[in-house]
Amino acid sequence: MYQIAIMGFGTIGSGVFELVRENKEVLKRHAGDDVNVKYVLDIRQFPGQPVQEVLTNDVNDILNDPEVSVVVETMGGINPAFKFVSGALAAGKSVATSNKELVAAKGTELLALAREHNVSFLFEASVGGGIPLLRPIMNALTADRLESVTGILNGTTNYILTRMDEAGVDFADALAEAQAKGYAERNPSADVDGHDAKRKLAIIMSIISGHFVDAEAIPTVGVSGITAADIAAAKEAGYDIKLLARGELTDGQVYARVSPYMVPPENPLNPVRGVFNSILIHGNMVDDVMFYGRGAGKEATASAVVGDVVDELKNPGKTIYPGWSAEPAAFVPLGDEQCAFFVRVNAMDVEEACKILPAVKCVGLADDECGILTEVMKESALEEAAEKMKFISVIRVL
Amino acid sequence: MYQIAIMGFGTIGSGVFELVRENKEVLKRHAGDDVNVKYVLDIRQFPGQPVQEVLTNDVNDILNDPEVSVVVETMGGINPAFKFVSGALAAGKSVATSNKELVAAKGTELLALAREHNVSFLFEASVGGGIPLLRPIMNALTADRLESVTGILNGTTNYILTRMDEAGVDFADALAEAQAKGYAERNPSADVDGHDAKRKLAIIMSIISGHFVDAEAIPTVGVSGITAADIAAAKEAGYDIKLLARGELTDGQVYARVSPYMVPPENPLNPVRGVFNSILIHGNMVDDVMFYGRGAGKEATASAVVGDVVDELKNPGKTIYPGWSAEPAAFVPLGDEQCAFFVRVNAMDVEEACKILPAVKCVGLADDECGILTEVMKESALEEAAEKMKFISVIRVL
Repeated sequence: MYQIAIMGFGTIGSGVFELVRENKEVLKRHAGDDVNVKYVLDIRQFPGQPVQEVLTNDVNDILNDPEVSVVVETMGGINPAFKFVSGALAAGKSVATSNKELVAAKGTELLALAREHNVSFLFEASVGGGIPLLRPIMNALTADRLESVTGILNGTTNYILTRMDEAGVDFADALAEAQAKGYAERNPSADVDGHDAKRKLAIIMSIISGHFVDAEAIPTVGVSGITAADIAAAKEAGYDIKLLARGELTDGQVYARVSPYMVPPENPLNPVRGVFNSILIHGNMVDDVMFYGRGAGKEATASAVVGDVVDELKNPGKTIYPGWSAEPAAFVPLGDEQCAFFVRVNAMDVEEACKILPAVKCVGLADDECGILTEVMKESALEEAAEKMKFISVIRVL
Repeated sequence: MYQIAIMGFGTIGSGVFELVRENKEVLKRHAGDDVNVKYVLDIRQFPGQPVQEVLTNDVNDILNDPEVSVVVETMGGINPAFKFVSGALAAGKSVATSNKELVAAKGTELLALAREHNVSFLFEASVGGGIPLLRPIMNALTADRLESVTGILNGTTNYILTRMDEAGVDFADALAEAQAKGYAERNPSADVDGHDAKRKLAIIMSIISGHFVDAEAIPTVGVSGITAADIAAAKEAGYDIKLLARGELTDGQVYARVSPYMVPPENPLNPVRGVFNSILIHGNMVDDVMFYGRGAGKEATASAVVGDVVDELKNPGKTIYPGWSAEPAAFVPLGDEQCAFFVRVNAMDVEEACKILPAVKCVGLADDECGILTEVMKESALEEAAEKMKFISVIRVL
């Protein structure tokens, strides 16, 4: 029988605990033996619940028990998760985590520590919840030069944008609705300001490039500046607005950005609505492949965590997927990045705007406004134009 | 340096040959060493082309060369592919194939032979072309009880249905167009009659159930009976018609069927148009996950084949993924299967039809017709109703 431990009995941790009991037979079939949760680390008590029997508040119970070969970290945050995960890896235990903050900030060190001790540090659940994404990148798309990733990586903001579109409400109302439904936190900043998506993008691009991509170096704009008028204008021009995490790898240089984008109707990300996540990966041979599913939620995230656990149990004494090197990835210089833009101006300013913007199309909008769709142009050129005249809003076009 | 061989230099085989040259660096990074094609088996000559240097028409050159550790089979058909693949496995070489006919008909034997010789027989490319699907099922969704699969597994028929919908043309015209574009064969039966999708479904359900699912036992209807009027009627009722391969696994019993289905707009398979494939998998924890991409084509298919090759090169002396057992899967008895139906009748027959069908909704259609949407009901009950009165057409509803 395999013995595992869970650190943190919150939403995801309790999901892992329940999954291991509920899907006992499935795990036995895949892992080759029964899987048992020997410890759950939490400072709280859960009297009367099954978890109480295996509860401990001392991490050393886990670290010092040679029977425990795999540890699940579902505490969230950097401290004390980093210390506990380091301790587990150093004690020769593989770790599976759903903690994107930890992976984005400390992944490089933890991957090195795992290699040093011939164990694995896996984090499929940290990106896209239950959607298999990191493992297919590392284990299936290995014949392709992966050139770009475009993802709806945050379900909360996708839900908000969907509701703004469907119900025609403003950002604040859609956010309040998301909070009421439990899709958004009381302090929604990590989601709505794009930090969550930024960390996930950093993890994906680190894996694809093989080098550490610092989440803090990724230009990030969230959705709080998107107005009902923006959504309506996009619709009139035939687009939907999504918060996208976009990364490219060209000649070893990384481009990465989190920003609202106008997504054309023929793009497979366009129909993705509500809390779902979807990630489009472009390879030089396979062309576009897309992975879609629930990017959050107790059961779906637990599914990804335990998928990692199974892989680790099957590969004792071995580091699965080396991850990325400590050497930072080279970024494409800011300003050199290229993109098409959708620029809203007052109808009376259209002529002037078309002189300073490489316009492809001009769409008449409500309230005496026009939307100008530009050619693909340098970000720096857009900034220069924005200094010359005031635009009502500017949104990137995928 | 790793030495591999390719059997069959047709579309996919030449794609594999070119990929190995083009993506040399990528393969070295993932496999850990250079990958070289030492032999290509074909009875034809290709003077002046790079392949000519490594061409052989004698399979024994490959089977007897101890340097060759992995063999790619891209000949298609059962004979002589079965004989050659058996020979390679028996000689201790792992095999990667794109040949769904071979896998569906002979997979059970070839998987057993691979296990016997501690090598692998992999076939990611046989289902969904370049889309990672089998590997995520076997290697990522291992914490889930997988309950159903619903897939657009044939790009040719999806293209035909898309064109019938977009252009309002009949099946024959859409087929002719697909043939002119190279999406359909001159003899289109394998695609349009659903045999291709049936084989792919059999492979997926064999993996999910762990038992051999015989493709020939899967009830299969293709798209040649779908008329422009069916498409128009579906549209009026708010649906799109897709050829779906649908499999369920309940209490160890397999349900499998290939048939045209009306797909509701909110289903993520609904927006999949043209030659693309998409597969929705439902697990008891992860809920729905979907994999989307090019289900055919030279480069995309080669990408999947070489992804298997990389996995095999990294795991010498080991059988990756045991596949399924020779024991046949138990099928749900025909007639016990349950489905909702969309039944077209003449307007004057509606009252009578609603007496013998469990109608949920009735939609007025053009030409004095009505479309009756039924409750989920037994297939056998629908058949009984069809004996009592003549329906214009009957289509399953997803």
